Amino acid sequence: MSPRIILPYLCSMYSHLPPPQLTQSIPPPRPDVLAAVMAAFAPGAYSADAVDRICTSRDLLTPGTLRIRYGQIFLPPELIIWPTGIDEIMRTFELARELGVSVIPFGAGSGVCGGTLAVQPSIALDMKRMRRIGPIDRDRLTVWTEAGVIGQELEERLNAEQLTLGHFPSSVYTSTVGGYLAARSAGTLSSLYRKAEDMVLAFRAVSPAGGLHEFRAPWGRAGLRSPFIGSEGTMGVITEAEFAVHPRPETRRFRGFLFPSVTDGLEAMRGVMWSGIRPAALRLYDPLDTVLVGSAGKGQGGLMGLIPAEALRTAFSNMGHRLYHEGERLLLRRPQLISLLNRVIPPKCLLVMTFEGPAPVTAAEEQHALSLCAGCGGEDAGPHPAQRWWDNRYHVSYNQSKIYAAGSFVDTMEVALTWEKVADLYNQVVAALSGRVLVMAHFSHAYPHGCSIYFTFVGAAPSVEGGERLHSWVWDRAMAAVLDSGATITHHHGVGLLKARWMWFEHGPGLRILRAAQRTFDPDGIMNPGKLRMEGRR
Amino acid sequence: MSPRIILPYLCSMYSHLPPPQLTQSIPPPRPDVLAAVMAAFAPGAYSADAVDRICTSRDLLTPGTLRIRYGQIFLPPELIIWPTGIDEIMRTFELARELGVSVIPFGAGSGVCGGTLAVQPSIALDMKRMRRIGPIDRDRLTVWTEAGVIGQELEERLNAEQLTLGHFPSSVYTSTVGGYLAARSAGTLSSLYRKAEDMVLAFRAVSPAGGLHEFRAPWGRAGLRSPFIGSEGTMGVITEAEFAVHPRPETRRFRGFLFPSVTDGLEAMRGVMWSGIRPAALRLYDPLDTVLVGSAGKGQGGLMGLIPAEALRTAFSNMGHRLYHEGERLLLRRPQLISLLNRVIPPKCLLVMTFEGPAPVTAAEEQHALSLCAGCGGEDAGPHPAQRWWDNRYHVSYNQSKIYAAGSFVDTMEVALTWEKVADLYNQVVAALSGRVLVMAHFSHAYPHGCSIYFTFVGAAPSVEGGERLHSWVWDRAMAAVLDSGATITHHHGVGLLKARWMWFEHGPGLRILRAAQRTFDPDGIMNPGKLRMEGRR
Repeated sequence: MSPRIILPYLCSMYSHLPPPQLTQSIPPPRPDVLAAVMAAFAPGAYSADAVDRICTSRDLLTPGTLRIRYGQIFLPPELIIWPTGIDEIMRTFELARELGVSVIPFGAGSGVCGGTLAVQPSIALDMKRMRRIGPIDRDRLTVWTEAGVIGQELEERLNAEQLTLGHFPSSVYTSTVGGYLAARSAGTLSSLYRKAEDMVLAFRAVSPAGGLHEFRAPWGRAGLRSPFIGSEGTMGVITEAEFAVHPRPETRRFRGFLFPSVTDGLEAMRGVMWSGIRPAALRLYDPLDTVLVGSAGKGQGGLMGLIPAEALRTAFSNMGHRLYHEGERLLLRRPQLISLLNRVIPPKCLLVMTFEGPAPVTAAEEQHALSLCAGCGGEDAGPHPAQRWWDNRYHVSYNQSKIYAAGSFVDTMEVALTWEKVADLYNQVVAALSGRVLVMAHFSHAYPHGCSIYFTFVGAAPSVEGGERLHSWVWDRAMAAVLDSGATITHHHGVGLLKARWMWFEHGPGLRILRAAQRTFDPDGIMNPGKLRMEGRR
Repeated sequence: MSPRIILPYLCSMYSHLPPPQLTQSIPPPRPDVLAAVMAAFAPGAYSADAVDRICTSRDLLTPGTLRIRYGQIFLPPELIIWPTGIDEIMRTFELARELGVSVIPFGAGSGVCGGTLAVQPSIALDMKRMRRIGPIDRDRLTVWTEAGVIGQELEERLNAEQLTLGHFPSSVYTSTVGGYLAARSAGTLSSLYRKAEDMVLAFRAVSPAGGLHEFRAPWGRAGLRSPFIGSEGTMGVITEAEFAVHPRPETRRFRGFLFPSVTDGLEAMRGVMWSGIRPAALRLYDPLDTVLVGSAGKGQGGLMGLIPAEALRTAFSNMGHRLYHEGERLLLRRPQLISLLNRVIPPKCLLVMTFEGPAPVTAAEEQHALSLCAGCGGEDAGPHPAQRWWDNRYHVSYNQSKIYAAGSFVDTMEVALTWEKVADLYNQVVAALSGRVLVMAHFSHAYPHGCSIYFTFVGAAPSVEGGERLHSWVWDRAMAAVLDSGATITHHHGVGLLKARWMWFEHGPGLRILRAAQRTFDPDGIMNPGKLRMEGRR
């Protein structure tokens, strides 16, 4: 396949627009790298094809999607190697060191932080051929998987045995278990099942200096906690893992509540988590995001799926059909104007919650949560809003393409902090950004001591440069507020290139630990450079 | 105070025997160390007194208690420094480096693994003057404490505000919060509240190279997991921490069950944990340990409190009172004979469980557990056995002194592994050891994927050398079985000197990470040498 074919494929998200043309040339791979890999690997184990190189040149970092929209790509890897075992990985490390190029582990490319982007000549180590699952051990409730297995495939295999991993990230169809551990992933039911790092009982990893290591982690192994978890490919590559799994829950209960304000809804969330009961999910949407989630599963909706047609028709009730679509496109080009919608949409915040477990226990939990929510001004909306959220939980990520097509960009920022600061940080970020971009949020991943705020931004991008400037302005402003509040800069998306420059401000001197561990495993600095390592600027 | 006074105090555990006399001389502190500390610290901030040095020469490592019984001590520190802040800690590090001595952080000395024992000339950094608590933040449900605060004091302060930390180790009266984090402590309600490392939101630590660091950990800080947790004083010293706390539970329910065998009881435990309900505690005792826990709170009991008088009287029903006490002493000198008791005591295994939370939820949970236990052959014993365990949970550790007084020793070994291997490992360890020592166990710290086995050994110690030889034989045999099974060598007691030689076999090359991190924080190797660092032998 040539770039002429793959680029429209990559851009099929913009299906109703003429596909963008590649406006830059793809340099051929470095001849010494190609020759060395050809000599060391069987023909099917690698590729220097331009198409493959373009495909692994990016993940879902917003500026990357923006560039593709305008026919541009980031620095592609010299070539891709698809290992099927340890030997090929070790050989890749050896070659990379000799050739002076870096190695970037690559899962399914759905990361949104540029964790797989090259900052210098590199080889992409694509793990998707390491995709064996098994054995599933019903006596232990465990499953072994290779690192390249896609989350949804693993979940379906477990479901067939009446088991579940309990890990439901919105990327579940397009992300790998290796990526979950490398980036400390969390799924929608993290209040009950916690994060990927809490689900793993053992894993194996290969690194340039140390070769193959096995880490076992039943309730924290003696004395040691592996910094490999969360290392985002900077120490080596995770090759396989054993996960704890669970019997599928006997019952799953759903309940929705509507609150008059974010503050009331947060108060209810905190009350539920403090009461000692354990919902599987607890998610509160701000008024704008409430309108969005309310439209899920109700067909197309307006504003390219972002805002439901009903709400828009309320706002622009006298517009004809044609005028309506023109208005929609116009608004997506000036998304900051959508903030005006806040004046016409009902100031309601939807809280959805689910409970899992034996029927009498979940019934008692739901009843208790119901009385707590009523005490905070919540209006019982019955099971349907929560059930609808659950049924459509993976849809929203696939609705973003039309925003780019209209000449805008969208990005998300998920931070985590303790309850008492959540409302303040939310208000600060909204106030700091809403003049120039559309900003909305939901509050999810609730724990007894806090939750995550998941912001969505939409900004106008009349050009790559204009979009990147605005994108950078958004992150600088938002991260300043986040760091001031003491929140962590990421709950489950990871750090990557995007957030590397704020790591120092979050961690301070503690960052030295990670560097020391990196050096031990990767003394020549070939593993995924530029990530987690940088000194900060703010 | 002179050694003549303190030694009997230290040995007050043997109150009904003449106190042992110190049979070795305490060398004076190294003059250069003393002079340097006198020049750098105010008079009250340190001590070179022999009594203080004896007191910090040991923790509760069994061979240390054995030595004290025979009037001997381990290598004492040159002197003790009691810091009240960061400056004094940094100054201690500086002096130690200049003088070529090591620094050993010291909490309350209740560790059972020799984690505070000196292997070369050292300064003890006793943290007990860093004992400020506060503020307790009811909006966040958090508390700041300095590292030298005793667990029980913290819990009582929280209780006064209707809060709880949820951390109830049996050492709670004699252990510090810094120790909890340094050694990855777990309390009796860990099934609900998890381990100390899961309770901490932030902590500060001082290390020789890096100075003061702050680590924050709301649900895992971006990219990084601090290896300081579990470092047992080998990287520096934890100075203060912020813990997540909880409202005191609305209800606490207790229930006991009797099972005909360990296997049946373990099956019930696993069933409860797999069903998706969440007891606060779930503890199963083997037949011998069932007799022991059954005696708790019923007065003295026989066999120096270890075995209840009732059981012994059943076994030796025709013995007169005097003969009974003689027999008891005789048996404690040949504890392996107590294994014969297994032939006369009822083969019953007690399972105790507790539930915490809103009343209707705990009632539903208890009811569900009840039906699961009945399905595994459990006989409902009502709330009393569990309530009695809870009320007397801190007593057992204080019952050990008479075993030493009789010329024997006692030690405990807490390992953790996945459910399917628990019964096998239990049987292997019992079979491997019961010819030469008394061995019994309980199964606690239940999680969805496994639990801890907590073994208790009692062996005869006619001399320090004889006791240490037998103690070493016990650990070698037990650890061989543990490592073969894939269990972790410690669940919550830590590693210390005792288990350092098995770390390599548990971790393999992964141990390099910890060494790398250690070197970064402590490039001169002054921090608590000999712990966590050693290559293994088996």
